[in-house]
Amino acid sequence: MADKNPILTFIGGTGDLGSGLAWRFAKAGYPVIIGSRQAEKATQAAAEMIRRGPLDVRGMDNAAAASAGDIVFMTVPFASHEATLASITAAVQGKIFVDSTVPLMPPKIMRVQLPAGGCVAKQTQEALGENVRVVSAFQNVAAAHLQDDGAHLDDCDVLVTGNDADAREVVVRLAAKIGFKAWHAGSIDNSAVAEALTSVLIFMNKRYGIDGAGIHVTGTPTKAG
Amino acid sequence: MADKNPILTFIGGTGDLGSGLAWRFAKAGYPVIIGSRQAEKATQAAAEMIRRGPLDVRGMDNAAAASAGDIVFMTVPFASHEATLASITAAVQGKIFVDSTVPLMPPKIMRVQLPAGGCVAKQTQEALGENVRVVSAFQNVAAAHLQDDGAHLDDCDVLVTGNDADAREVVVRLAAKIGFKAWHAGSIDNSAVAEALTSVLIFMNKRYGIDGAGIHVTGTPTKAG
Repeated sequence: MADKNPILTFIGGTGDLGSGLAWRFAKAGYPVIIGSRQAEKATQAAAEMIRRGPLDVRGMDNAAAASAGDIVFMTVPFASHEATLASITAAVQGKIFVDSTVPLMPPKIMRVQLPAGGCVAKQTQEALGENVRVVSAFQNVAAAHLQDDGAHLDDCDVLVTGNDADAREVVVRLAAKIGFKAWHAGSIDNSAVAEALTSVLIFMNKRYGIDGAGIHVTGTPTKAG
Repeated sequence: MADKNPILTFIGGTGDLGSGLAWRFAKAGYPVIIGSRQAEKATQAAAEMIRRGPLDVRGMDNAAAASAGDIVFMTVPFASHEATLASITAAVQGKIFVDSTVPLMPPKIMRVQLPAGGCVAKQTQEALGENVRVVSAFQNVAAAHLQDDGAHLDDCDVLVTGNDADAREVVVRLAAKIGFKAWHAGSIDNSAVAEALTSVLIFMNKRYGIDGAGIHVTGTPTKAG
């Protein structure tokens, strides 16, 4: 018998990226929990998704959502990162925690401004402690493409970083379930690439008039990875 | 009448990346000067290139090479970056300066370790001053592919960053002359992406057994850029 699908929680799941990922994973058959600071907003977002299809989606406040999920994703604005993290630290102990936070600092969102220490995901690993397996992924995905059921998600590869290779592998496989080509990209320090790349892609979208620029990794693998 | 090709200088031009770029640009018809700390090593590298084809290549010590070039490229190990820069600061005033330095810190070359302040190229702009137009490019190119005349260079796009858009455009066009697809990628801060990406590509080469992983930018431009 196949393993039961894990419950996926999306902290900040009412935002563009979070709700897009939640929508795609729910459609792929995963039980999904949307978290928000206000339970009511989360419940509302879940109800809207269910109106679009018969999906297993619930809404809760962030702490309850983090407790109820097997794997917890976080997609919040950078300005809310630290406070949100503090509100769920206890609830995510022992779990895989997928951080997709992009350190954009408005108004200069086309300029790379990495935080002290190198990158957000490394701060996350330090804040949550060694008992949480932090994986960084999905920073470069165009949120609009996630919401558009006609869009192919193989337009942008996903760089997956983290200090625990097994946890990375879980996320690489999850990403594939919703149509992404995902790659092991090294330790959590290497999250700097994906975090910084978002500003470059926003710049290119504007300069070249691209609707959601992304990247593909080129070259021919000779090992499965 | 077409403009005469500018003289291209490669500081650190005896290394893998520098000599590879020098070789490709010389073959494309540009007068090339190879710079090295020791004039003799540079002269020797130039002589070796000329043995491979009737090219306009000369060797000089770094300061003389920087003075003689119209556009100056720098491809030195990160450990030599600061000292090399100091030796050519006077010689590059008023010029376009292309920094391709990758902040690899052996032995952990598969781990992103960006320098204080965000990236090397920004340090370069600050060190050389506002009278030098610093452009950052070519960090992600597989040096071995440059040396291999059979290799197609469109396997890896070039991200071109810098605070002066006209200077970036010069480098975008130069890159195209030797077969690269190059992109305007924003201000010099955005060099962090290309500088950090090299460690990720080295990681992927090892993990997936790829011979020179690179990236393509995806999406459809609707403006020339």
